Amino acid sequence: MRFFSDNAAPVCPQVLAALGEVNILDTAYDGDRWSQQLDGRFSELFGTEVRAFWVATGTAANSLALAALCPPHGGVVCHKEAHIHVDECGAPEFYTHGAKLMAVGGPGAKLTPDAISGVIDGIRDDVHQVQPHAISITQATEYGLVYSPAEVAVIGALARARGLGLHMDGARFANAVAHLGCAPADVTWKAGVDVLSFGFVKNGGMSAEALIFFKPELAGATHYRRKRAGLLSSKGRYAAAQILAMLESDLWLANARAANAGAQLLARAAGERLVYPVEANELFLRVTAEEAAGLRALGFDFYDWGVGEARLVVSWDQAEEAIRPLAEAIAGL
Amino acid sequence: MRFFSDNAAPVCPQVLAALGEVNILDTAYDGDRWSQQLDGRFSELFGTEVRAFWVATGTAANSLALAALCPPHGGVVCHKEAHIHVDECGAPEFYTHGAKLMAVGGPGAKLTPDAISGVIDGIRDDVHQVQPHAISITQATEYGLVYSPAEVAVIGALARARGLGLHMDGARFANAVAHLGCAPADVTWKAGVDVLSFGFVKNGGMSAEALIFFKPELAGATHYRRKRAGLLSSKGRYAAAQILAMLESDLWLANARAANAGAQLLARAAGERLVYPVEANELFLRVTAEEAAGLRALGFDFYDWGVGEARLVVSWDQAEEAIRPLAEAIAGL
Amino acid sequence: MRFFSDNAAPVCPQVLAALGEVNILDTAYDGDRWSQQLDGRFSELFGTEVRAFWVATGTAANSLALAALCPPHGGVVCHKEAHIHVDECGAPEFYTHGAKLMAVGGPGAKLTPDAISGVIDGIRDDVHQVQPHAISITQATEYGLVYSPAEVAVIGALARARGLGLHMDGARFANAVAHLGCAPADVTWKAGVDVLSFGFVKNGGMSAEALIFFKPELAGATHYRRKRAGLLSSKGRYAAAQILAMLESDLWLANARAANAGAQLLARAAGERLVYPVEANELFLRVTAEEAAGLRALGFDFYDWGVGEARLVVSWDQAEEAIRPLAEAIAGL
Amino acid sequence: MRFFSDNAAPVCPQVLAALGEVNILDTAYDGDRWSQQLDGRFSELFGTEVRAFWVATGTAANSLALAALCPPHGGVVCHKEAHIHVDECGAPEFYTHGAKLMAVGGPGAKLTPDAISGVIDGIRDDVHQVQPHAISITQATEYGLVYSPAEVAVIGALARARGLGLHMDGARFANAVAHLGCAPADVTWKAGVDVLSFGFVKNGGMSAEALIFFKPELAGATHYRRKRAGLLSSKGRYAAAQILAMLESDLWLANARAANAGAQLLARAAGERLVYPVEANELFLRVTAEEAAGLRALGFDFYDWGVGEARLVVSWDQAEEAIRPLAEAIAGL
Repeated sequence: MRFFSDNAAPVCPQVLAALGEVNILDTAYDGDRWSQQLDGRFSELFGTEVRAFWVATGTAANSLALAALCPPHGGVVCHKEAHIHVDECGAPEFYTHGAKLMAVGGPGAKLTPDAISGVIDGIRDDVHQVQPHAISITQATEYGLVYSPAEVAVIGALARARGLGLHMDGARFANAVAHLGCAPADVTWKAGVDVLSFGFVKNGGMSAEALIFFKPELAGATHYRRKRAGLLSSKGRYAAAQILAMLESDLWLANARAANAGAQLLARAAGERLVYPVEANELFLRVTAEEAAGLRALGFDFYDWGVGEARLVVSWDQAEEAIRPLAEAIAGL
Repeated sequence: MRFFSDNAAPVCPQVLAALGEVNILDTAYDGDRWSQQLDGRFSELFGTEVRAFWVATGTAANSLALAALCPPHGGVVCHKEAHIHVDECGAPEFYTHGAKLMAVGGPGAKLTPDAISGVIDGIRDDVHQVQPHAISITQATEYGLVYSPAEVAVIGALARARGLGLHMDGARFANAVAHLGCAPADVTWKAGVDVLSFGFVKNGGMSAEALIFFKPELAGATHYRRKRAGLLSSKGRYAAAQILAMLESDLWLANARAANAGAQLLARAAGERLVYPVEANELFLRVTAEEAAGLRALGFDFYDWGVGEARLVVSWDQAEEAIRPLAEAIAGL
Repeated sequence: MRFFSDNAAPVCPQVLAALGEVNILDTAYDGDRWSQQLDGRFSELFGTEVRAFWVATGTAANSLALAALCPPHGGVVCHKEAHIHVDECGAPEFYTHGAKLMAVGGPGAKLTPDAISGVIDGIRDDVHQVQPHAISITQATEYGLVYSPAEVAVIGALARARGLGLHMDGARFANAVAHLGCAPADVTWKAGVDVLSFGFVKNGGMSAEALIFFKPELAGATHYRRKRAGLLSSKGRYAAAQILAMLESDLWLANARAANAGAQLLARAAGERLVYPVEANELFLRVTAEEAAGLRALGFDFYDWGVGEARLVVSWDQAEEAIRPLAEAIAGL
Repeated sequence: MRFFSDNAAPVCPQVLAALGEVNILDTAYDGDRWSQQLDGRFSELFGTEVRAFWVATGTAANSLALAALCPPHGGVVCHKEAHIHVDECGAPEFYTHGAKLMAVGGPGAKLTPDAISGVIDGIRDDVHQVQPHAISITQATEYGLVYSPAEVAVIGALARARGLGLHMDGARFANAVAHLGCAPADVTWKAGVDVLSFGFVKNGGMSAEALIFFKPELAGATHYRRKRAGLLSSKGRYAAAQILAMLESDLWLANARAANAGAQLLARAAGERLVYPVEANELFLRVTAEEAAGLRALGFDFYDWGVGEARLVVSWDQAEEAIRPLAEAIAGL
């Protein structure tokens, strides 16, 4: 039983089926009838006019987003444990041609207006220092915490006041929205988000994430950047189809709710061992090396997280009965 | 009936089926059991030790190849109609951080040693001029011509003599090998090719091309560059599976032979109208605007190619009976 | 007696003297009183509001100009013998983060509207092809030809019509203006030039060129790019002083006139041997290898230019009496 | 009386005089007889074979050094207050094409092996995380502290053990060596430094710093990078002459000793107010806003440094009698 990563989970049957449904001749690149639906479908979902791009990975989505918000000589404020800073091998620097990530601390990998202001206020407004151009937050965070609409809104207001763009890395956006129970709009453009990396792969997709621009005028050069990065698949309809299948009947929400529910099952068993409240599909537990070994001896796999902690991730496809044995094992530690 | 592009064709059933077969939990990125087979399978196919990477597009494969062969301050000799120069929106420049493509002329988009030497000899060996570091050839060329092993070998010898790397853009490598009837090795590493972009998508694949390094020591940094470019899919097994399915029972060759045969059918009908000999799955015909309109009125779709020419591409899935009507229409012009 | 290059000439006494005059404490970088005069002095000279930057080299000026006019995914139309294309080791590609130089032919390294349109019209307006964003012309050209105000104006009109920026590489702008006898404005902003690299080093300066933005709104990011490129000297007043000395009493024009006059002296002697009309301070002569050797045996140094041609450059400091012996030697060939 | 920055100081008379001495015709770029002496002169000074380049600024020297040590996908460990990280507008990122600066804390902007290991040990050796390729230290540090040969040597040993390059930003290398009284070799290559930015401009130079490669094989591509960055001045002899003048009779050491002595004069007056020991030519004092205002009212200029601190920098040209009034004012606070 593996609780390593939602990246390792299989693809949802509806997504696989969708690949077969588009397996007919159509226009190459993103000129096909399915790719052409994305703007419209996401505009409906968000209740505002957006521009939507399929891209193969979350790293690509994040990097294209930042390239749209920040010039090569600018900076992007993010958490020091943000995926864009520590898990993307410098992709944001590659796509932005060398912009600087300005890393900020804070518990749970969550940014606060104070922390952001702290770094910005320390930057002299002169030509010797890289000037901030954007803020990037992760929803849910790398520790599974969820920003409420109000929390995003204060960061959005700060961004606007400072003239900065706001990017949301939504690799687990679905889990966050499922937790919040709000409209997707509430926690994005209504709260000041300019660009969203809307993740599907961790949530049952195969190889398509969506990059959403809430300000259509920001999206223009992304058409060129996507091609220039070798990300414009010639058979784009197989990417579009995945996303459309995830949007159909809110499959993205259903999958995220399932994963979140599984995480709650474990959370209740973990009790005081939890390092952070469990709001999405990730748990961080305090366990000794012996306890961790004990769980592994029972056939449960997961990552150690530094010393004395373990990270467990529940995927969209893990049924309650598959999770319960781990819950019991944790409770019995 | 469309003869626009092999990019528009559907995906081969074996490839789609393979996606279902790997739809089980496995390690993320390229740690899964299928991705791990690629080095071995391609080493067998080529009869030498290679390093193989899946990447989503041919543009990405080409650009990663060039980044491995050429520093930012260097140059890559290519044909002035090479895909890397005129159809990739500057992707080679992006991945190489600004290397210069040194474009050379010549009929049929084919490079010759003389043409290559011509451009290289004109470059002073000083710090003011970009120095060449690599040569890139396209097999089959953008006009459907195929380099013989001997033709590649003389370019390979030139490259070695000048200390340059040699890249082969094999978006239609399968069609070329099918035409030549040679071993894949004969027209690649045995002829001096260092890196090959081995195309599968135009030949029945969905979203996976292979990047093959014949000198394993050249491949190291590509692991980082692929991640840094946002090309390292988290569910890489679905990419590996496509390629493995294409290699199985030489499906790649069978598909290419089918497309080539269809092109020959049209070539025989076209006779004197052919601008170039037909060696792969592309034809370039001399047609007047009226003739082109006539063909279109009969339901055949294709691209105009400049003035007075048309480009027709036959795909792996087009059966003889689907092509014959066009052959007859061309013959009847 | 050397006629290699105006780059090899000494520095003009007024420029050296100016270094001593500013050799007192002042603000670092470009906050000093001399640097602060540049905008005003050049605005006067050009009769319009400009932004002016000192930079150390012409290559840096050109590259910063192009970075201001062209995004990484764009292209710059230039002559195939333009300095930016063949003599700057890829600096434009470095500063623009990989923009593509779109090289055009034409006699005397001079661009014409037809040649420019030819390359632009061949570019499909889609995401696969690098789109042009700017044109760069060299005044005087690499072969010493001078664009008249009318010639620049038609290119300027074309640029405007196509939505492209227009850069002038004025490494020998002084020689061109001296030849034309026009106001500097006539051949720059009034003719549609957006950014000018105004060369001083070849004309008696030491280490300071001026980069002039005729549209102040284009200049903003250049402040950051100049710093980011390591070009913002901490003791900038010594750069500003050089330029101010060259502007004082139109020394720049006097020096250029002197060099041009010397070139005319040689041109008259060369007669039919001239490959191009002599309009600035460079001559290209048809000479056999024996004739070239003969001139060298008399102590005259110059570059061979391909086969059967020689390039002679007259510098600001070469007095008539120093040039006359060469004129006589040429006449006597 | 200004104690703002050694950047604002005038140029030393010997340097200015040297400009006049080379004001004769010679080969362009770095082919002249003075530029050609640099390798030899620095090899003598350091007692080992080096490659030496003139460049216009310390930012350029640092960035070229890092580009030689770190690929675009790599990282450079430096102090979080290092000039390369906070005062160069992202120049290292520009020249390295997006490498990541890995910032480490520690008092006095001084790196320790423990702090360096701390950051390196936290990096997983996988393709998702930027891998460290180099360490950069500043000598003297941004707070005027000097690394002893032994302190550099332990960092050098760490670098070697980890396979990292070691760069020394020696903007105030002269002040550090003057303080240490050691041979320049002792604190550089003998202690493991691979590349040194040897500063002259703050120490009496005008516009030339030296970039020194202690491993000649590391220097090759820098010839191209310097040109490509627009840093290869066409009249390079005026840069070389400045450096040669500074080396002549150890002028660089004499100037640094003078500045250090002035700083000691102030340090003795400051006593308990010193935030750090004074080892080079910079002082950081604890002063209230009122005290700072009082000093300024007496005509002394300096920067506030955060809240409650002031930074004073003594330049090479400030005589004891010019400094003594400030020392007395400080003592009298």
